[in-house]
Amino acid sequence: MRPHVFVNLAMSADGKLSTKERRQVRISGDADFRRVDLIKSQCDAIMVGIGTVLADDPSLTVKDALLKKKRADGGRDENPVRIVIDSGARTPVSADILHKGPGTRIIAVSGSANPEKTAVLSEYAEIAVFGDERVDLSNFLEYLGTLGIQSLMVEGGGTLIWSLFAEGLVDELFTCIGNVVIGGRDAPTPADGEGYINEADFPSLVLKDAERIDEGILLHWIVKKTDDDQ
Amino acid sequence: MRPHVFVNLAMSADGKLSTKERRQVRISGDADFRRVDLIKSQCDAIMVGIGTVLADDPSLTVKDALLKKKRADGGRDENPVRIVIDSGARTPVSADILHKGPGTRIIAVSGSANPEKTAVLSEYAEIAVFGDERVDLSNFLEYLGTLGIQSLMVEGGGTLIWSLFAEGLVDELFTCIGNVVIGGRDAPTPADGEGYINEADFPSLVLKDAERIDEGILLHWIVKKTDDDQ
Repeated sequence: MRPHVFVNLAMSADGKLSTKERRQVRISGDADFRRVDLIKSQCDAIMVGIGTVLADDPSLTVKDALLKKKRADGGRDENPVRIVIDSGARTPVSADILHKGPGTRIIAVSGSANPEKTAVLSEYAEIAVFGDERVDLSNFLEYLGTLGIQSLMVEGGGTLIWSLFAEGLVDELFTCIGNVVIGGRDAPTPADGEGYINEADFPSLVLKDAERIDEGILLHWIVKKTDDDQ
Repeated sequence: MRPHVFVNLAMSADGKLSTKERRQVRISGDADFRRVDLIKSQCDAIMVGIGTVLADDPSLTVKDALLKKKRADGGRDENPVRIVIDSGARTPVSADILHKGPGTRIIAVSGSANPEKTAVLSEYAEIAVFGDERVDLSNFLEYLGTLGIQSLMVEGGGTLIWSLFAEGLVDELFTCIGNVVIGGRDAPTPADGEGYINEADFPSLVLKDAERIDEGILLHWIVKKTDDDQ
């Protein structure tokens, strides 16, 4: 049994995660920051793709002291298990995710990753090898299930989110839409990668909730299950 | 005085206008179709970029018979003035916009457009020449103002919308967000083109209204005026 997977992201009114230079920009505000910190503190694990690590160097830690304490009081680590999908073991040894805050880190690599690089990274994180050239997400998520991880938050980027959708591995999608326009045909979007060709393949969503937050709006979508899903 | 410019578009939950092959797909539903027909019937002119003409071949006509009649009863053409921004005069002579329904058409070309092509197109549409290599949108919109066009609806695509934002020529933005995921780093988005590099340049919006429509949601944004705007 794989974990329940929810994607959380902030995008501009024109559907961009950041500028074409992938510069981290402020799209949402303080209220959304607190909301994200809360749901992060409530999940078992949080996951990003290597592109996000290289562009943003996020620590993925819970920020609020009370939320951290609540986790600790419940017998859990201060932070959820932090996971990087990194087929080529390109995570820098100096990455914040490997150093900031206590808790378990898992780097998922593919069989083609350089063994010397994975050996170095294994000093800071558990290394999980799934797939030949690219991480086999479906099997990796099953593996996370065996570790007792029941809820998995995905923070990006667009390539990882696309891959998860393409394999039917997303259950919920939260998009905080900020009150800016970023533009750019090369700017990252919530689901990049190859994209669907046929309309019949589009995942269909249900809009569970929409609420104003900061100067924008938070949309909460549930992904409809199809016959293909197990 | 340029017309009041509002952009209207439908995008997927992940911010795409269509697939990477630019295939026209159903993102919104019947209620949004009727809404778009209504606001189209209420504006003086409707504008698209040449990319949209080549990909979708839209007629841009008002569809509902009562709405057409209402325009006619008010002493206006059945359809708003239909405009293509087409720097290179690439509009096909067979394009639906030139043949379907009564009303005025304007093709805005640049000074670099092939004179033979513009001569042929001038049999079907007024040709307006603005700018050297690319249509000078600001001056062209001023020209539309002199024609008495006070409200201008922009239906796409992403390149034209980007250019309008970049020149501070957008007043309102309506995005109907449909309940599908399309994906694709090369799929068109609401604002393509170069995109902003600096956060300080992002146009800032005010979320005037958000209402559920069909299986998605319609967001109505107002573009904040800056000191640069005249």
